[in-house]
Amino acid sequence: MMEGALLISKMLERAEKLFPKKEVVSRTSSGIHRVSYREIGERTRRLSSALEKLDVERGDKVATLAWNDHRHLETYFAVPGMGAVLHTINVRLSPQHITYIINHAEDKVLLVDPMFLPILQAIKDQIPTVEAIIVMTDDSLPDSELSPLYSYEDLIANANPNYEFPKDIDENDPAGMCFTSATTGKPKGVVYTHRAITLHSFALGLSDSAAISESDVVMPVVPMFHVNAWGMPFASTWFGSTQVMPGPAFTPELLAELITSEKVTITAGVPTIWLGLLKELDANAARYDMSSLRAVLCGGSAAPMGMIRAFETKHNVPFIHAYGMTETTPLATLSRLKSYQEDLSSEDRLEVRAKQGYLVPGLEMKVVNDEGEVEWNGEDMGELLLRGPWIADEYYKDERTEEAFQDGWLHTGDIVTVDEEGVIKIADRTKDLVKSGGEWISTIDLENALMAHDAVFEAAVIGVPHPEWQERPLAAVVLKSDVVTSKDELLEFLKPQFAKWWLPDDIVFMDEIPKTSVGKFQKNNLREQLQNHLTV
Amino acid sequence: MMEGALLISKMLERAEKLFPKKEVVSRTSSGIHRVSYREIGERTRRLSSALEKLDVERGDKVATLAWNDHRHLETYFAVPGMGAVLHTINVRLSPQHITYIINHAEDKVLLVDPMFLPILQAIKDQIPTVEAIIVMTDDSLPDSELSPLYSYEDLIANANPNYEFPKDIDENDPAGMCFTSATTGKPKGVVYTHRAITLHSFALGLSDSAAISESDVVMPVVPMFHVNAWGMPFASTWFGSTQVMPGPAFTPELLAELITSEKVTITAGVPTIWLGLLKELDANAARYDMSSLRAVLCGGSAAPMGMIRAFETKHNVPFIHAYGMTETTPLATLSRLKSYQEDLSSEDRLEVRAKQGYLVPGLEMKVVNDEGEVEWNGEDMGELLLRGPWIADEYYKDERTEEAFQDGWLHTGDIVTVDEEGVIKIADRTKDLVKSGGEWISTIDLENALMAHDAVFEAAVIGVPHPEWQERPLAAVVLKSDVVTSKDELLEFLKPQFAKWWLPDDIVFMDEIPKTSVGKFQKNNLREQLQNHLTV
Repeated sequence: MMEGALLISKMLERAEKLFPKKEVVSRTSSGIHRVSYREIGERTRRLSSALEKLDVERGDKVATLAWNDHRHLETYFAVPGMGAVLHTINVRLSPQHITYIINHAEDKVLLVDPMFLPILQAIKDQIPTVEAIIVMTDDSLPDSELSPLYSYEDLIANANPNYEFPKDIDENDPAGMCFTSATTGKPKGVVYTHRAITLHSFALGLSDSAAISESDVVMPVVPMFHVNAWGMPFASTWFGSTQVMPGPAFTPELLAELITSEKVTITAGVPTIWLGLLKELDANAARYDMSSLRAVLCGGSAAPMGMIRAFETKHNVPFIHAYGMTETTPLATLSRLKSYQEDLSSEDRLEVRAKQGYLVPGLEMKVVNDEGEVEWNGEDMGELLLRGPWIADEYYKDERTEEAFQDGWLHTGDIVTVDEEGVIKIADRTKDLVKSGGEWISTIDLENALMAHDAVFEAAVIGVPHPEWQERPLAAVVLKSDVVTSKDELLEFLKPQFAKWWLPDDIVFMDEIPKTSVGKFQKNNLREQLQNHLTV
Repeated sequence: MMEGALLISKMLERAEKLFPKKEVVSRTSSGIHRVSYREIGERTRRLSSALEKLDVERGDKVATLAWNDHRHLETYFAVPGMGAVLHTINVRLSPQHITYIINHAEDKVLLVDPMFLPILQAIKDQIPTVEAIIVMTDDSLPDSELSPLYSYEDLIANANPNYEFPKDIDENDPAGMCFTSATTGKPKGVVYTHRAITLHSFALGLSDSAAISESDVVMPVVPMFHVNAWGMPFASTWFGSTQVMPGPAFTPELLAELITSEKVTITAGVPTIWLGLLKELDANAARYDMSSLRAVLCGGSAAPMGMIRAFETKHNVPFIHAYGMTETTPLATLSRLKSYQEDLSSEDRLEVRAKQGYLVPGLEMKVVNDEGEVEWNGEDMGELLLRGPWIADEYYKDERTEEAFQDGWLHTGDIVTVDEEGVIKIADRTKDLVKSGGEWISTIDLENALMAHDAVFEAAVIGVPHPEWQERPLAAVVLKSDVVTSKDELLEFLKPQFAKWWLPDDIVFMDEIPKTSVGKFQKNNLREQLQNHLTV
C-alpha cells in the first residue's frame, strides 16, 4: 500500500476541489461575512506564502490570539499546511501565563484580533522570540507601539494565491499546539500531529459519533483556542460542511439568532453556554427556530441531566454528551444509545445519555484503582486511562509529563465508573476524591445532590483529614438568600440517596465558594481553609 | 502524540468489549446460525492459538476458500490478529489459477469450506507450500486423501480462549491479500496492510459514505474473497453492527427472505445480484418486506440507471453507487448527492446518482489524457489515477507492477469523465476505448444506448483499425428473437444521442457475444475476429 501521509493540507484541498461553493459564515465586527471554500483555499495559500516571506520555516511556531472566524480558520490550514506549527493561545489566560506560553513555545509570529493588541502591548518586552505581529482585521492598522506590525489583509493581498503546500511532511510531525491550565503552576503544552488531527477528524465524521457531513451547518461555539474547537473546523472543512463562526463576545441571543438564520444543524460547546441558550429559549421561544438543529454537542464538564431533559423535551433539541481533554485532541467518548437501548423508558434513556458515553473507534481505555482494572458494573470507581493515536504522550518540554503519562497510558486524573455497556460516568477528579477508610467517595455526586435542594445555591464537597478514616467528606454550602434550611435538613435530604458512610461529616455554610478564573471551584483553597475542621 | 498503531486486532477487541451481545447471523448448511461478538472474540482467539500450534508465524500466508459466514469472519481477525497474512482465494478461479496463486503467495495453511475439498484434491500434488488444511464445518471430517486435514471446530475446541493478540505489529505490515484477474495472464496479487484496512474502515463509517453504524444490520452479499467483501466485515465488527452472512449458493429469493427476516439495513454487491433481486421483488413483492433497508451499495461494474430507478421508485429502496477495485481496498468514490443538489428534479438527481460519485476523504485523484489533467466538465475523458493510504503501490512479486503504478499513482485503466461537482462517470476501460483521429469514443455509452433499443438483447462496441482515422467504432449486436430491426434503424436510433463522429461505422449482427468466465464481454476476442472488418 502507498504511504499516503495523513496531512492537514489534504483536507483543505478536498474542500477546494469538491466543495468550492460551500461557505464559511463569520460574525465579525463589520457584520455577517460569507466566504466560499474556493476563496478560503486561495486566501490560505496566500497566507502560507506571506508567512514564508516572513521567514516562517518548517517546525516554527505561529500563534493566534483570536476568536472564531474565517481568518482564524485560514490559519488552521495555512500554518500546518506549510509545515509550521499553529499555537492557539487561550485569550482568557492571564498576561503572565500568555507571556510564559509564548516564550515556552518560542512563537515566531503572532496573528491577533485587534482587541488583543493591548495585551501584547503590555508584555511586548518580555516575548523576545516574536518577530512579527499580524492583525486580523478588515480595517486599517491601529496606531501601536508594537513592531513590526502587519495587516492580515494587506499581507495576503500581496502574496501568492497559487502557493503549493509541501507534501514531504511526515504525518507524525507537529501541526498544532495548545496549552491546558494546571491546577497549580504554569499551563502545560500539548502538541498535535497531522496524523492525530486527521484520524480525529475521521472519528468526528463517523455515523455513530458526531457524524459531521457535507449537509451539516456546523457552528463551533467552543473557542478555536480550546483544543482546536474540538477539531470541528478540520473535520467540517474536510467533509465540506457549511461552517458558522460566532466571532467575539457572543450572547445567548446571538447564538439563538445564528442558529435560526443560518439553519445550524450541529453546534458544540460547554454546559455554561447551553445553560445560557436554554434560558434565552425559555424566555423568548417564539423568536427563534431551533428545528434545523440535529445535535448539540456538549463537553468540557458534565451537563446536568435537567438541562439535557429541558433541551430535548421543551425545545426538541437532541443533546450529545461527550468527554475529552486537551491531551486527547479531544474526542474520547460520546454518549450515543446503542440500538437495543432504544426500547428503554425515556427516563432510562436520559440516564444513559447523561453519562459521558463509550469510547470512539481508534482509542483504547482502561479504568484502574489500587487493585487493578475495575469491574464494569456502574459502581466501582477507578482512574480513566486512555491510549491511541490521538492521545498525547507528553507535555511539551515539561517535567510534569512523568505524572500523567505512565506505561504508555495517559492518566486522565478523572475518576469514573463504567457500566455494563462500557459507558463511563465521571465521578470525580483524582485530586478531589475523598478516600475514606480505603473506600472512595465521589464529591461530584454529593455536590449534584446538594445543589438539587431548593435552598442551595452552590455546594462544594471536599475531603479533609480525619484521625480514624484518613479522610471524610465535608460540604461547603452557599444558600439562596430567600430560602431557609439547616444542616440537619440537608443531611436528611441526602440520606435516602447515598450509603450512610458517604454522607458528609459536616456542612459548613459560607457566603461564597472560592473559584478559579474560569469559574471552577478552587477546591485546593477550600481544603486549606478547612483542613482542621474535623480534627480540632 | 502516541504512536497508536492501527491494528486489525483492535477492531475485534472493541466489539468484544463494547458489543458482546450483538450478533453475527450466518446461513449455513445446517440452517441459520447465530453467534455473538463475545463468542466470535473467543473463537477467534482460539483460532489464532490453534494456528500458532500449526507453526503459523508472523508474515506467513494463511488462505481461505470459503463463502460468507461466521467462520470466515473469524479468520479475518485471527490471521492478521496474530501477525500472519490472510489470503482470501476467489473460489471461482480455474484450478490452474488457484494452484498458481497458492504457490505465488506460498500459502502455509488453507481453511476451506467442505464443498471445495474436491478442488484441493485435484491439485494437491502441485501446492508444496501447504502444510495443513482445515475444514470449516460443523459436521465430522469427510473421508479424504488430503493430509494433514483438521476440523476447524475440533481445533479451536482444544485451543486457548485467552490468546492475546500481539501488539508489536507495525501498522504497515501485511494483513491480507487478494488476487485480481487480469485480462490476459495470471491473476495479480494485492497486499493489504493493517493501516490500509483500518483507514478504509473509518471511511466506510463516515456519515457521507456508507455510514456503517452500530444500529445497522449489514449483509455483505459480495463474497468475502472479493476485496474483503469491500471491507464491510472489518468496519461492521469495529462499529458493532449486526452482520448477516448469506452463505453459499444463495438465490434472489434467499436474499429477499434474509432482508425480510433479519431486518437488514444495508447490503452490498454487484449489479447482477441486484438485477436478480429486483426481478424477484417484481414477481413476489407481497412476500417480502424491504422497509428496513436504508441502502443498497452497488459496485464492481456500473449499475444501469433503469435498475436504480426501479429499486427506488417501485420498491422504495435507496441505492448507493460506488466505485473501486481490488487495488483500492476497494472504496474510492461513492455517489451521494450534495446538499444543494437535493433541489434537483428527481430525474436529474437520478442522473447524478447513476454516476460513480465523488472521492471519499483520505484519497486523491486526477484524471489525465495525453494533454494533461482534463477539465471537470462532464465531457472530457481521461484515465482515472488514484493515490492514498489504501491504494496499492504494487502487485505482489509481479512485473506487471510497472504498467499500473507510475509516479506514485495507481493508473486504474478506467477512462472517466468528471463533472463540475467532481463526480466521476466511467466511460470505458483504457484498452476498450476507441481512438478515432485523436478523439476518444466511449464504447460503454454506445453499448448502453444500443441496449436501450427494444430489439437489442446485447451489444458490444469495439474499436477496429481504420486506414484514415486509425480506429473507428464497430458494434456487435445480438437481437431479441421476437423483434425485427435493421442496421439503419439502429443507427437512426443512435443519431440524436451522439455526435455524428461517435456513430459506429457498421453494425454486425451475431448470435452471441463471446464472454469471460465471469460473464463480461471478451472484447479482445471480438477485436481479433473483426479486425479487418473496415479495411477489407
